[in-house]
Order: sequence, then C-alpha cells, then structure tokens
Amino acid sequence: MKAVNNSSLMQMSVSDIARLVKGELAGDAAVVISGFSGIKEAKKNELTFLSNPKYEPLLLDTQAGVVLVPRQINCPGKTLIRVDNPSLSFAQVVNHFLKDAPDYKPSGIHPTSVIAATAKLGSKVAIGAHAVIEEGAVIGEGSVIYANSYVGHGAQVGRDCLIYPNVVLREKVVLGNRVIIHSGSVIGSDGYGYVISDGRHLKIPQVGTVLVEDDVEIGANVTIDRARFDKTIIGEGTKIDNLVQIAHNVIIGKHCLIVAQSGIAGSTKLGNYVILAAQTGLVGHLEIGDGAIVLAQSGVSKSLKAGEQVFGSPAHPFKDALRNNAHIQRLDKYVEMIKDLKKRIEELEKKTI
Amino acid sequence: MKAVNNSSLMQMSVSDIARLVKGELAGDAAVVISGFSGIKEAKKNELTFLSNPKYEPLLLDTQAGVVLVPRQINCPGKTLIRVDNPSLSFAQVVNHFLKDAPDYKPSGIHPTSVIAATAKLGSKVAIGAHAVIEEGAVIGEGSVIYANSYVGHGAQVGRDCLIYPNVVLREKVVLGNRVIIHSGSVIGSDGYGYVISDGRHLKIPQVGTVLVEDDVEIGANVTIDRARFDKTIIGEGTKIDNLVQIAHNVIIGKHCLIVAQSGIAGSTKLGNYVILAAQTGLVGHLEIGDGAIVLAQSGVSKSLKAGEQVFGSPAHPFKDALRNNAHIQRLDKYVEMIKDLKKRIEELEKKTI
Amino acid sequence: MKAVNNSSLMQMSVSDIARLVKGELAGDAAVVISGFSGIKEAKKNELTFLSNPKYEPLLLDTQAGVVLVPRQINCPGKTLIRVDNPSLSFAQVVNHFLKDAPDYKPSGIHPTSVIAATAKLGSKVAIGAHAVIEEGAVIGEGSVIYANSYVGHGAQVGRDCLIYPNVVLREKVVLGNRVIIHSGSVIGSDGYGYVISDGRHLKIPQVGTVLVEDDVEIGANVTIDRARFDKTIIGEGTKIDNLVQIAHNVIIGKHCLIVAQSGIAGSTKLGNYVILAAQTGLVGHLEIGDGAIVLAQSGVSKSLKAGEQVFGSPAHPFKDALRNNAHIQRLDKYVEMIKDLKKRIEELEKKTI
Repeated sequence: MKAVNNSSLMQMSVSDIARLVKGELAGDAAVVISGFSGIKEAKKNELTFLSNPKYEPLLLDTQAGVVLVPRQINCPGKTLIRVDNPSLSFAQVVNHFLKDAPDYKPSGIHPTSVIAATAKLGSKVAIGAHAVIEEGAVIGEGSVIYANSYVGHGAQVGRDCLIYPNVVLREKVVLGNRVIIHSGSVIGSDGYGYVISDGRHLKIPQVGTVLVEDDVEIGANVTIDRARFDKTIIGEGTKIDNLVQIAHNVIIGKHCLIVAQSGIAGSTKLGNYVILAAQTGLVGHLEIGDGAIVLAQSGVSKSLKAGEQVFGSPAHPFKDALRNNAHIQRLDKYVEMIKDLKKRIEELEKKTI
Repeated sequence: MKAVNNSSLMQMSVSDIARLVKGELAGDAAVVISGFSGIKEAKKNELTFLSNPKYEPLLLDTQAGVVLVPRQINCPGKTLIRVDNPSLSFAQVVNHFLKDAPDYKPSGIHPTSVIAATAKLGSKVAIGAHAVIEEGAVIGEGSVIYANSYVGHGAQVGRDCLIYPNVVLREKVVLGNRVIIHSGSVIGSDGYGYVISDGRHLKIPQVGTVLVEDDVEIGANVTIDRARFDKTIIGEGTKIDNLVQIAHNVIIGKHCLIVAQSGIAGSTKLGNYVILAAQTGLVGHLEIGDGAIVLAQSGVSKSLKAGEQVFGSPAHPFKDALRNNAHIQRLDKYVEMIKDLKKRIEELEKKTI
Repeated sequence: MKAVNNSSLMQMSVSDIARLVKGELAGDAAVVISGFSGIKEAKKNELTFLSNPKYEPLLLDTQAGVVLVPRQINCPGKTLIRVDNPSLSFAQVVNHFLKDAPDYKPSGIHPTSVIAATAKLGSKVAIGAHAVIEEGAVIGEGSVIYANSYVGHGAQVGRDCLIYPNVVLREKVVLGNRVIIHSGSVIGSDGYGYVISDGRHLKIPQVGTVLVEDDVEIGANVTIDRARFDKTIIGEGTKIDNLVQIAHNVIIGKHCLIVAQSGIAGSTKLGNYVILAAQTGLVGHLEIGDGAIVLAQSGVSKSLKAGEQVFGSPAHPFKDALRNNAHIQRLDKYVEMIKDLKKRIEELEKKTI
C-alpha cells in the first residue's frame, strides 16, 4: 500500500506568503508552511492569524510557524507577518493554496448524464457521469454536479456550488451561491407529519420546500426535510456537519455551526451564530437566541436566550449542570453523611429523653 | 432568489370542502383553506378534525380555520363542517388536495435504467433514469422507482410503492403495498454480527432478509439490516423518520412511530402503537409492549410493559425520571441543608456532653 | 406475499460438520445445523464453539445444537465436536456455509459503468451497472464494485473487497484487502474545519485522505471524513456499524468494534480492541487505551486508560456510574431522611435550650 503524502501539494515559505499578502515579515524567513489552523491548534508548519490585539497574549503560546498580525504587533521570538487586515490576508493565503490544489471536479457535461429538455444550465456548469437533472431545474454558472447525483424538478442551484456524488436535491429545493453539499445528503425529503385517523397514521402532505442560503456547507449523509407548506431555511454561512437531521419548517439563522449527528425537530428556529455541539437534540417549536451554545449530547426542550450555554439531557445552564454533575459524583459521600447524622441524632435523642 | 410559494397549489374554500365531504357547514363560508394539521397545531388557514366528542373542549382553543366534527357538535364562533365520520372525511380532503398537487414522479421506463431480463414489472410501473433492477426482482402494479435507486436480486416491491432516488433495496428484501421509502435509505444491509476467533472478529453470515409491511413510510438515510437467518420485520402502518437504525432480527409491530436518529439493537421486539421519540436507543433482545412511549434521548435496557412511559439514560418510568431530575436541580440546596444539620448537631453534641 | 425462507440455503448435519473439521462427534448425530452464534446466544439449530477450557461452565447453559470444543472437553447430554483448534474449525464451517450461499454479486464489467481511461482494474474485478471509476483509480484483483457506486480520482481499492451499491469513495482514499463497505457510506468527505474571520466561517482546506486497513467492515450510511493534511485511519480488522461518524484525523486501532450511531470527533486516537457501544460520543483529541469499553449513549470527554470501562454523559468509570445512578433513584428517600432529621434536630434544639 503506497504511502499517501499530500505535503508536496501545498508548501510555501513565509517570505513568499509575506509577498503574497503585501505584509512585513518579522522573524525566521526560512520557515515553510504547509497548512492552516486556529491560533490555539496550529502546529509549527502551519499559518494562523490574530485579528484582535486584545488576544495578543495568545501569541506567546501558539505553536504556529507564522502568524498574520495587525501592523502594530510585536512579539520577539515569533515569526510574524504584519498586515492591515489579518483575517482578510489569511483568507487570501488559504485561497491561494486551494487554487494550487489538484482539481478532481468533473468538467463539461458527461455524456451519460440525463438532463431534461427544460433544465437550464449556466455557463461553465459541469455535470458528472450518470447525474440526473429533472425538468425545470436550474444550475447556476460555474456550479458542479458530481456523478450519480439527482437534481429534482424545478430545483434551483445557485452559482459556484459543489454538489458531491450521490446527493439528492428533491423537487423545488433552492440553493444559494457557493453552497457545498457532501455525498449522501438528502435535501427536501418529506417532513415527518401524520394525523391519527381510525387507528392509522394518515400522512399530512409535505408540499413546501427547502431554502439553503449562500455559503452554506452541508456534510455527508445529512437529511433536511422540506416544510409542510412553507420553507425549511438554512441561513447564510451556516455549516452543517455529517449525519445531522433537520426536520420540516426548521429555520436556522446565519453563520451557525451544527455539529455531527445533531437533530432539530420541526418548526424550531435558531438565531445567528448558534452552536450545536455533536449529538445534541432540540425538540420542536423552540426559539434559540443568537450565539446560544448547546454542549455535546444535550437535549434542549425549552427556548434559549441569546448567548445562553446549556448542557445535559434535559439541558440546564452550563454552570448549573457542571455543579449538579459534581454533586452526583459525591452522592455516596453525602449519603454517608446523612447516615452518620442520623446515628448521632439517635444518640442525642436517647440522651435528652 | 425567487420566492417559493406553494400556496397556489392547494387552496379551497370551506364551502367547497363541505360539498366534497357532503357535510353541513356552520360558520364563515368565506374561509379559504390551504393546509391540514392536528387540532392543537392547526393555524387559521388550516383544516383539522375532531373525531371523539369527549375532546370537544379542544374546539374552543383551536386556531384552525375549519374543523370537521361529528353531526351533533355545536360551537358558536367556530367554523365547522358536520359529517358522519370526521376522520374519514379528513382523509378524503387530504387525498383531494394531494390529487391536485403537481406530480414529479417519473413515468414509464427510462431508457437509461438497467432492468434484468428475469425481473417482473407490473402494469403502470415507472422506473427512473439509471435505476437498476436486478435478476428476479418483482415490482408491483403502479409502483415508482425513482432515478439512481437499486433493487437487488429477487427483491419484491408491492403495489403503489414510492421509492425515491438513491435508495438501496438489497437482495430478497420484501416490501408490501403503498410503502414509501425516502432517498438514501438502505434496506437489507448485513446485520452487525461477529464472533471473536483467535483475536479477530469473524463475520457471521447474514442471510436472512427484511419484510416491510403495507403502508409503512421510511424516512431519508435510514438503515434497516437484514436478519441473520430469518426476517427483520417492520409492521403495517409504522412510520420511521430520518437516520433511524434498525438492527438485524428486530421486529416492529403495527402503527409504531420511530422518530429521527433513534436506534434499535438486534432482536428487540416492539408491539403495536409504540412511540420512540427522537434519538432514543433500545438495547437488544427486549420486548416493548403495545403503546409504550420512550421519550427523547432515552436509553432503554429493560423490557417495557404495554403503555409504559419512560425517560432518561438509563430510562426510568417518566414520573420517577421527572422527580429525580427535579431533585438533581436542588442538590445544591440539599447539600447546604446537610451541612447546616451537621453544624447544629455538633452544637447539640457540645451542649449534651 | 411469498414467505421468505432461507433455511434451505444452509443446513448441515453435525456428523457432516464433524467430517468437515476432522473432529470427533459426541452426542446426537441427527442434529441439523442451520446457523452460527456465540455460545451464550446460540439456539438449538445453531453451531457454536468454546476455545478456552476455563469457560467450560458455559457449556452447561448453552442452547446450541452442537459445540466445537478442545479435544479434552467432556459434557454429557450436550452434542460436542472435539477438535484441535475450535475457533479455527468454527471459521472453517462458517466459510463452508458461505461458499454454499447464493451469490448476488455482479460479475464482469457492466457496459453502463463509466471507467476512466487511466483507472487500473485487477483480474476478476466486477463493476456493476452505472458505477463510476475516476481517473487513476486502482481496483485490486477480485474486488467487486456494485451498481451506482463511485470511486474517486486516484482512490485505491485492495484485493477481494466488496463495495455495495451507492457507496462513495472520494479521491485518494485507500482501502486494504478484503474490506467490505455497505450501501450509502461515504469515505473521504471533507473534515469539518473552519476558522472564523470577520464574522464568517472560512473553510480550512481538507486535503488529506482516509486509509482503511485490511479486513475492515463498514456498515451502511457511515461517514468517514478525510484528514486535513494527513490520514484518517481505520485499523485492521475493525468493524464499524451503521450510521457511525468518524471525523477528520481520527486514528482507530486494530480489531475495534464501533457500534451503530456512535461518533468520534477530530484527532481522537483509539488503541486496539476498543469497544464503543451504540450511540456513544467521543470528543476530539483524546487517547483511548487498548481494550477500553464505552457503554451505550455515553459521552467521553477525557482520555481512557487501557481496559477502562465507562458509562454516562459525561462518562465515569462504570462502577461509579452504576452506584450514582442507584443513588439518583433513591434521592426521594434521601430527601425525606434529611427533612426528618431536620425536624428531629429542631425538637432537640427546643429541648436543650
């Protein structure tokens, strides 16, 4: 089995990086960079950045090979590149690396794909082998539909989207621009809705759709159900990890992070910048405020205010949950204390009779 | 991005609905209905129904635009349609709406589908682009196999089934009539069975199959494993939500609801009308009685009697779980009480020596 | 609906089995075997084995029709086959049964498959209908790619692998020999990695890959993300159940069992023979020692030593978790005790003033 080595794909000296971002290099110009990371996680061959001068103390601890920093920052012993806007420069370097990465996308329209007569394809669209594009579907300029994927009747895919192999976009689903959907995901399956009638579950028609806004990324084997009559919405810039379940009529705000195997029940509404850690569950019809954080495996059954942090199943405010968990670990000791007190009271009762 | 508006698809005045179900209209004949819901959730443009006169008080609170009710019911201020059998009439209206909904099904046999010579297709069967039907498979009258789906050797699909794109039915799997399977689901994958032998996990052959009875609906990206030698069974009318895992040899009764991301381990047997809320887990070899309810995120490791309701991981009777959770929230207070009692006992002990 | 009966597929008398494994039969030669199982679960028509004489007491309780045992074992009333190496003989019988099982694999190269000019196929490779094999992919001798599966650019599949329908192997993924991947699984999707930059989540390129070693089996609808720069690794002989999530840069040792719906976050490292029961979750950057066991629905946020067994969310050592759960069930009683003690102290305080 041949070793897999990608390091040759992306290597760049810090002096080349400084030149690319028009920055001022301070420190060891010989450092070679082969990746990126956050300032806390970065390793010695990785680039990171510091945007806000108030986090300057993080500079002392970072293992990063080089840090993009604002013009005024100084940190002897660290290799820095001083720029006007560090996060913008960071994005610029990432994109430069990506541009150099080998490209495995299909190009052109594969002859085995099946494209309906009324489907509309923008310029530079690529459609992979055996992909199926149904009547009235619209694929925006520069978008790529990989092999074996399915784009349903009247579905709309924006510009520069990447739809990996074996994805299903059901009829009328709408994607914005630069949306990425990984393999095996299903967007627009019927919501789970029944009414019991004479002992049988009668299916409630699910004739709404799903709107996925610009710059959303959706992991592998995710399921997002269409709304009953209206729209399930995934807000701009939100990133959804693998095996997540989004039920009908859920509305997710902008720039949320929904980590793997989480599930959101019907009609729940998330604000912006909400974080759901892995394997969390939210019941239906909740309102989750901006920036709220649900810790891993938690089960949320009540609405959350902006910025609230909760943990546990059922979920409680993070500090309470930690304190209660600590108490639970000491229950044995407390029970001993109770038994001891009981004995001592019995002693006292004997004496005071 | 063009607004998505399905409301034009299904609109009907209450007087038209009354005429359709041969009912007697009481109240505002001008109300227009564009959807359906349960009596508690219904909104002002939705139709609902009330079957059992003992729930008449719900009529006062419902927001529904119109309610199908038994002949004798009266409720001033509400728009009602009086009929002989409200749930039957409700189903009739739902089906009428569905009939009018646009139809995105494939029709006929797509020339790019691959259908084995010994496969048998009933009349009015539709097979989508790139679908694969293996040797000896049988597709019943009126059933629809969407694009990119796979029907394995000797698999049997009943009448009027809907198999959405990218579904896999492995060999010998048997579906009843009117079964719906959403995209990405896999029916009949091998059960997870190994025996350790000289430090290696030796695979136990999984040569049974799966039987899915009439009127079952299976969500997206569900996995149902074939039995080791016999049959995994999904009982008539049961509805399974997205990303559910059903292990080998599980037997699910009739009209159960298995909500998203739940999992049932091998050989567990559910009665009829069991409800597993989202993200629940059942260990193997249990017996779950008729009508038992497992609340969200619960983990069940013991068999349940008919009608039992449990919560928590590990699961306990619902009332006990609620009470214990409430106690856990007050542990801090209890610990303070214990410390206070201890001090007071020490005082008493000093005094009584 | 025709009854499904597989029993005819595999039936063998114990005397035929004894002959096959060159063993000595003791007991009822007329017993007919139609399956296999572990010694605790086996039924009267199933074969099992006992390797280690120290587990001889299990013989008394087993329901198995016949047990392969070491030469020296005796157990009146049970049907035994005495052999030199019971687990080896067991494997031999299992393989004999499998050999007789009907074969539903595709054979040859289906004319509708799309195989890139630079892909390399070993001898006896089978490619199903509509499968897509991209440029530079390598499929080893005897491997089978079922219908509708996708093998990305430069991906390598070893010898005698089984890739079921609708599987996606993304570019550069490497599989060892005798790997089995069930339908709907996605190997090599991008890891979930972003850095926040001016209020937007900037995607960190995920240009590493996945290495799946020899004799791994991966269930249905599993997701395994590619590493950021290096390799996500699934060690030799490990068995992964349905709907499991493996994040980027995870390293799983040899012969682990990862049961359904479990998830492992980024960069966590498992030793050998680790068992993750169903619906467990591990946070990132942990080290899990050899033979550690995580019980169902547990959430692990700290590294585990070899052989450690944990339960709960958050997870604690199994015995502590059991004891604490038992205490929680008795909280009501403890609170009553505290209240009673308080009253008695108040009485005592009145008396001693």
